[in-house]
Amino acid sequence: MLDSNIISSLQQISGKEQVLTDKADLICYSYDATQKQYLPDVVVHPANTAEVSQIMQLACKEKIPVFPRGAGTGFTGGSVPTSGGIVMGLTRLDKILEIDEENLIATIEPGVVTADLQKTVEKVGLFYPPDPASLKVSTMGGNVAECAGGPRCVKYGVTKDYILGLEIVTPTGDIIKTGGPTMKGVVGYDLTKLICGSEGTLAIITKIIVKLLPKPEAKKTMLVLFDSIDGAAQAVSAIIGGKIIPTTLEFLDARTLDCIREGTDLEVPDDARAVLLIEVDGDREFLDKQVGKISEIVTPLGTVEIRVADTAAESEELWQIRRSVSASLRRVNPDKYNEDICVPRSKVPVMIRKIDSIADKYQIPIVNFGHAGDGNIHVNIMIDGKVPGEEEKAEQAIIEVFKGALELGGTMSGEHGVGIMKQPFIPMELSTPAVDYMKTIKRALDPQNILNPGKIFPSDNTKVEAA
Amino acid sequence: MLDSNIISSLQQISGKEQVLTDKADLICYSYDATQKQYLPDVVVHPANTAEVSQIMQLACKEKIPVFPRGAGTGFTGGSVPTSGGIVMGLTRLDKILEIDEENLIATIEPGVVTADLQKTVEKVGLFYPPDPASLKVSTMGGNVAECAGGPRCVKYGVTKDYILGLEIVTPTGDIIKTGGPTMKGVVGYDLTKLICGSEGTLAIITKIIVKLLPKPEAKKTMLVLFDSIDGAAQAVSAIIGGKIIPTTLEFLDARTLDCIREGTDLEVPDDARAVLLIEVDGDREFLDKQVGKISEIVTPLGTVEIRVADTAAESEELWQIRRSVSASLRRVNPDKYNEDICVPRSKVPVMIRKIDSIADKYQIPIVNFGHAGDGNIHVNIMIDGKVPGEEEKAEQAIIEVFKGALELGGTMSGEHGVGIMKQPFIPMELSTPAVDYMKTIKRALDPQNILNPGKIFPSDNTKVEAA
Repeated sequence: MLDSNIISSLQQISGKEQVLTDKADLICYSYDATQKQYLPDVVVHPANTAEVSQIMQLACKEKIPVFPRGAGTGFTGGSVPTSGGIVMGLTRLDKILEIDEENLIATIEPGVVTADLQKTVEKVGLFYPPDPASLKVSTMGGNVAECAGGPRCVKYGVTKDYILGLEIVTPTGDIIKTGGPTMKGVVGYDLTKLICGSEGTLAIITKIIVKLLPKPEAKKTMLVLFDSIDGAAQAVSAIIGGKIIPTTLEFLDARTLDCIREGTDLEVPDDARAVLLIEVDGDREFLDKQVGKISEIVTPLGTVEIRVADTAAESEELWQIRRSVSASLRRVNPDKYNEDICVPRSKVPVMIRKIDSIADKYQIPIVNFGHAGDGNIHVNIMIDGKVPGEEEKAEQAIIEVFKGALELGGTMSGEHGVGIMKQPFIPMELSTPAVDYMKTIKRALDPQNILNPGKIFPSDNTKVEAA
Repeated sequence: MLDSNIISSLQQISGKEQVLTDKADLICYSYDATQKQYLPDVVVHPANTAEVSQIMQLACKEKIPVFPRGAGTGFTGGSVPTSGGIVMGLTRLDKILEIDEENLIATIEPGVVTADLQKTVEKVGLFYPPDPASLKVSTMGGNVAECAGGPRCVKYGVTKDYILGLEIVTPTGDIIKTGGPTMKGVVGYDLTKLICGSEGTLAIITKIIVKLLPKPEAKKTMLVLFDSIDGAAQAVSAIIGGKIIPTTLEFLDARTLDCIREGTDLEVPDDARAVLLIEVDGDREFLDKQVGKISEIVTPLGTVEIRVADTAAESEELWQIRRSVSASLRRVNPDKYNEDICVPRSKVPVMIRKIDSIADKYQIPIVNFGHAGDGNIHVNIMIDGKVPGEEEKAEQAIIEVFKGALELGGTMSGEHGVGIMKQPFIPMELSTPAVDYMKTIKRALDPQNILNPGKIFPSDNTKVEAA
C-alpha cells in the first residue's frame, strides 16, 4: 500500500477525480489480453506532459514503480502492474495535434486510438499503414512501445518505420524530444527507434510524430486455396520474386481450415489445405494487371480455387474466412496460448511441419495462421486449462515451437513483444552478453528500476537454458 | 606513444604485416573527407570477428582508444583518431557471405564496398537502394555507422531501413548478435537501430544482415527547369501529393546553376533559377504514364523547360548537370564547408531564401543543392581559407544556417552525422536532458570511453549556446 501522502500528491498533480484507489477501479487496470492479473496500488490519468513529468519526479523521489498503460490490449503483459505501485493511464492524452498535409506528417498524443488516426488522415487522402488486430481499441502509445505490426506490414513495414520523432519523459521526469519532423536526421543516437519496442521500460511516450503516405487509390482482394502449405509458401516467394509486393499476404494452415469448416458455414473445399488471402493496393488501372499476374504465378502451385473480389462487398466476403478464425478456434478448446514467432519467409512450410509434429507429440491442437509475407506465424496452442496437465503440455510445446523457430534463424516474437509472457524464454534467443548489453542500458537510464520494472529481462529463475 | 608490448600483442593477434607503425603508413589513416588530420599510434587490420574481439579486450585492459575505420570517406571526422591510440581498419572483413534470393536478404562483412554490394545483388535481380555519393569507395560498415543516405532515399529510405541485424563487438570485446534475418522481431531493445548512426561509439560492426528488394524493372529520368525555387518546391509537394513517390528528386538552386553556366558547357537557359532532376522506377509500362503525369503537374509551376530521357545515354546526359556541380563549385573558391541540413520538405524554399540572405550578409558564396524530396539540402559555403577572416565568416554563417534549419523544425544533419565537425553545435539542436540521456548510454556501455572517444558529444567548451 502506498502512503496517503503519495496519493494526495498525485491528486494535487492531476486532480482528485483522476486518481483511482477503489479496488473495483483498480481491477480495471490490472490486466491485459493475457488475462494475467496484478492489482496496482493506484491509477492516475495525467492530462499532459507536464503532469507525466511531475508524476515521474514523485515516483523517482519515492522509488515507486510506474506502469505506463494505453488501452491494455497487449498480448504479453507489457502493461500489467506486476509489482503494485502506480498505473499511469495515458488515454487522456488523446489529441491529434496536427496533420501536416504538405509534409505527410501527423503529430499526435499517445492516447490516440490507432483506428482514429487512420480514419482522420484518410479523410485528407493520407494513409497510416500499420494495422495491428486490436487497432479499433489499441492506442498509438502502446503501438509504439510494443512496435506493433499487422497484415499490411509485408508491404509497408511495422510501427517503427512510421515514427519520426517522440516526446518522452524519462524515469527521472526529464522531458526530451527525440528525432523530429524530417525524413532524415543523424544528430546523436537514434533514441526514437530505441524507445520503439522498448515496452515502456525506458521512457514514457507523451508525443508522437508520425510519417504518413498518400492513400493508395484502390485495393483489390483475392483468396487462393491451395492443396498444400508448400504450394502456398512457394506462391508467396514467387509473387515477391515476381516483383509484386502485396499489401497483405495472410495465410491459414490446414488445421485452421478444419476449424473453419467445423465452426462456420463458410465454403472451404475439402481438398484445400492452405489459404492465402492476398490484397494489392495502388493505382486502380494497375491492380487488375497485378491480380492477373498473381493468378498466373499461383495457378501451377497446387491451387484448388482462386476467388477474386470485384466489389467492396465481395472483398469483405473473402475476408470473412480470415476473420472467422478467432471464433472458430474457441470451439476447439476454451483456452489459447497465442504466440507470434517469425521466421525467414521461405521457412514457413518447414516451420508449420515442425509445429504439426509438436502438436502430434503432445496431443494438443495447434492452429497456425498469420502473415506469410513476412514469415510471422500466429501459433495458437488450444487447451482446456481445467484439464490437469494441459497447461504443462502447452508450456513444453511452446518451448519446442520457439526452439524450432530459432533453429530456422527466426525469433520468438514478431509483433507482440516480451512483456512477462516470453521473459522466461529470453535466454533461448538472446545470448548472455546481448542481454547484459540491454540491461546495462536499462540500468543506466533507470537506475532505481521504477519504470515498468520486471518486464522483458528474465529473472534469475528462468525455465530454459541459455542459447 | 604506445608501449612496445602492446604493439607486439597486436602483432600476435593479427600478424606482423597487419600492424602499421611507420609514420608514412599512419598518415594514410589520419584523415577523412574533412581533411582534419590526427595521427594514430598504430593501425591494425584484423581479419575476422575473433581478432576484433581480442583487440578490443586488449584495448579495454590497457585503456587505449580504438577508432574503427572503413574507407575514411566520412564528411564529419567520425573515423579520425583524435586522441592517438589504435585505428582499427575493417577493410579486410570484405566478404559477401550470403545472398538469400528467396528471402531477399544478404549477409555481409563491414568492409564490403557499397557499390560492390549493389552490383553483386543486381546480378541476381535484387536491389540495395541506399546510394551515398561515396558509394564506389565507402564501405557498408561505415554506411551503417553513419546511417548513410543518398538521392534514392526519398522513395526507399536510408541505410537504417535496410539493416535487419548485426554482429557487433562491444567495448569490452564481447561478441553480440542483434536482430536477425526476419522482417519483424521485437525481442528486447532494438540494438540494431541503436548502433546504426551511432558513429562507431557504441560497438564495432563485424557482420551486417541487409534487407534487399526486387530490382525495379526500369527507370526513367527527367530534368525540369523552373523560373524559381518556389516553383520547384511546389512541384515536389504536388508530385508527392499526386501519389507519385519518385526514386530521386534532386534539386539545384539558382547559385548552383550560375556555377554550372560559368564552369561548364552544359546548356542551362538564363531564366532557369532552379532545377529538379527526377527519376521514377518500376514496371516499364507504368513509367511513361508517371512521366506524363509529372509533366502535367509541373508545367503550370513556372517551368522553363522539361527534358525527358528516352534512352540510357540521354538519361546519363541529364545527370551530367547534377554531376558537374562539385567540379563547378571548385571554380568559385578553393575551400568548401559542406553541410547537410534537413528541413520538412515544404520548407525548402524558405530555407534557401534564408541561406541566400546569410550569404549576402557575410559576403561569401553559398551554393545549395541536394535531395528536395526529403528536404535534405547540401549547403556549400565556398571560401578561400588563405584569405584572413574567411574561415571565421564561414563559421558564423554555418551557425546561422543551422539556426535557420532548426527554426523550421529541421536538423543540422540529414546524412553526414556529427563526428567532430558538428559537435560544437550539438547544444543548438539537442536539449541538455537529451544529450545527458545519450551520454548515459555511452558511459554505461563504454565506461572507459575507449571506443571512438571524443565524437558526437560536445566537450565543455562549445562555441554555441544551449537550445
